[in-house]
Amino acid sequence: MSLGTTAVAPPRSGLSPRRRGLTATSPFLRAAAGDRPERVPVWFMRQAGRVLPEYRALRATTAMLDSCRNAEMVTEITLQPVRRFRPDAAIFFSDIVLPLAAVGVDVDIVAGVGPVVAHPIRARADLDVLRPLQPDDVQYVSTAVGMLIRELGETPLIGFAGAPFTLASYLIEGGPSRSHTRTKALMYSDPELWHDLLGRLAEITTGFLRVQVDAGADAVQLFDSWAGALNEEDYLRYVAPHSARVLAAFADDGVPRIHFGVNTGQLLGAMGAAGADVVGVDWRVPLDEAALRVGGDRAVQGNLDPATVFAPADVLAEKVRDVCRRGAAAPGHIFNFGHGVLPESDPGVLAHIVDLVHEF
Amino acid sequence: MSLGTTAVAPPRSGLSPRRRGLTATSPFLRAAAGDRPERVPVWFMRQAGRVLPEYRALRATTAMLDSCRNAEMVTEITLQPVRRFRPDAAIFFSDIVLPLAAVGVDVDIVAGVGPVVAHPIRARADLDVLRPLQPDDVQYVSTAVGMLIRELGETPLIGFAGAPFTLASYLIEGGPSRSHTRTKALMYSDPELWHDLLGRLAEITTGFLRVQVDAGADAVQLFDSWAGALNEEDYLRYVAPHSARVLAAFADDGVPRIHFGVNTGQLLGAMGAAGADVVGVDWRVPLDEAALRVGGDRAVQGNLDPATVFAPADVLAEKVRDVCRRGAAAPGHIFNFGHGVLPESDPGVLAHIVDLVHEF
Repeated sequence: MSLGTTAVAPPRSGLSPRRRGLTATSPFLRAAAGDRPERVPVWFMRQAGRVLPEYRALRATTAMLDSCRNAEMVTEITLQPVRRFRPDAAIFFSDIVLPLAAVGVDVDIVAGVGPVVAHPIRARADLDVLRPLQPDDVQYVSTAVGMLIRELGETPLIGFAGAPFTLASYLIEGGPSRSHTRTKALMYSDPELWHDLLGRLAEITTGFLRVQVDAGADAVQLFDSWAGALNEEDYLRYVAPHSARVLAAFADDGVPRIHFGVNTGQLLGAMGAAGADVVGVDWRVPLDEAALRVGGDRAVQGNLDPATVFAPADVLAEKVRDVCRRGAAAPGHIFNFGHGVLPESDPGVLAHIVDLVHEF
Repeated sequence: MSLGTTAVAPPRSGLSPRRRGLTATSPFLRAAAGDRPERVPVWFMRQAGRVLPEYRALRATTAMLDSCRNAEMVTEITLQPVRRFRPDAAIFFSDIVLPLAAVGVDVDIVAGVGPVVAHPIRARADLDVLRPLQPDDVQYVSTAVGMLIRELGETPLIGFAGAPFTLASYLIEGGPSRSHTRTKALMYSDPELWHDLLGRLAEITTGFLRVQVDAGADAVQLFDSWAGALNEEDYLRYVAPHSARVLAAFADDGVPRIHFGVNTGQLLGAMGAAGADVVGVDWRVPLDEAALRVGGDRAVQGNLDPATVFAPADVLAEKVRDVCRRGAAAPGHIFNFGHGVLPESDPGVLAHIVDLVHEF
């Protein structure tokens, strides 16, 4: 064991005492491991964020990426939904492009648009900026994770990162895209450049998650938001090997690895096989069917349509129960929406959903 | 046979001579009927439009909806890709919101945005504008279809309309939407208003297609672009009955009915069962798998990823052949992209794809 280990970076070998203790008691960690805890665990993607008035107040005068670089703000924002909803896990508050900015990519989050990249990647020379991410690049992340695990007590913390394909799409398109035309054009037309790009992004993503896990995160979720734009053949050929490298880097850390994207009904098996312990499922494919596609040997996470929060109480309750019933077909089930919380949601309804799941 | 039949409106009862003759010879119509013609038929969604320089030149000073109301322009635009690519079918050039504008909805197409509705639907009183569409509302459509079938010769003409759910989304959101939040909120929270709205839209859509079929269109395609935002349960409950009414209205016209949406892997069976002769499939689900989901008793249409046009020649050719091979698993297969032609496509590559399919 290295003497250089710092207070916020537990040793990599073996499980930290915190992690060992939680694994036996946390419904979230037990379900992720394929177990069936006494209650169905629940958290919500984007539970930390715009849906909460206390978040909007805190963020009022702070730009998105600045808030992600402020350990105190990250800690507070991550904790806000835990106080409100008492979910079974916290998700580290960050942004998908933060690690890109941390290595020197000129990217910002524009309100109402999303990430905007100043110099989109068009040619090999554009890769130079994508050096590996070092812990010093994101010291505030280690600090925030350290503060969080002290505050969270028995609630596990999920580390957060975007997957190589999704990061590549932002870098190539220069921002959000519906059709990912330039991304696929580069992927098809210059596979060598493509694989070099995704290889570098896999290193950056791994580095970003490594900082979180070494600081004490209890699980990781790899968000491949846009992977569902691909069919399985292209996903396996152009994307899966890179996501698999990221996931494999945490095989010996004792942290469950969740792998999620929207519109990925055709990729559920491949996303599990890439090395996930838990496959996140959007609301389109019923969880019992999703469990089959995943192969029956991994936990699933999901998958209530986030718009269900607008339904009358009886419809909402029946849909929550239906997700729980179908989730029971998988070796483990973590309740979630099938995508992020809609900003227009009523926080009271989210709290009610947590209760409904726990009463199931 | 009514003496009142005009030159551009063949009788409704039985098949028009044109239609009867084509059905035996057209690869497109034969495949749609579940037959296996001597060559795989091919056309492209959005083959008429921005991808062609001659279209951009023609449209340079004419707003979108104005061009759809000009029978000469509609005819010319519909014919442009037929001259270039020699596809096995023409698709009537129009816009999804045209019938809404025709009954009095204040809607326009804003460049770079899409349809923008001045007064989005929020309450019951907002339904009043949605009266049934009469042939006189779209006289230019009858005229254009009549001109087209004289010009097209042996090439069948596909009529075009948006499905009730997709139209509802535009009307409720006020424009294009990623999450369809307001649409689903209305659907869940006020099912009575929802079904009244979709019922009216089904009438308008039926009226719009009726004009095209009575004027001589040889097939119809119902575009439910956004239906893939729903899971099957919600689709069956809130949407399918209305789309089924539209499709049923053409059961006795001898025109194949194509039913298409993107992200609809979970809905393929339901979209076929709604009364389609052909189910359009996006590029996410392989066609042999799609044929199974459809139930094995209907033709399929699709499903090359439109971004494949950017691939090197060998990759493109292999992907085209793969689609043809998998399509052979269905009772009939019409080659197409899995979504509309990307405006950035090279028209020469589209022509090459037609050749590749015909050589298969």
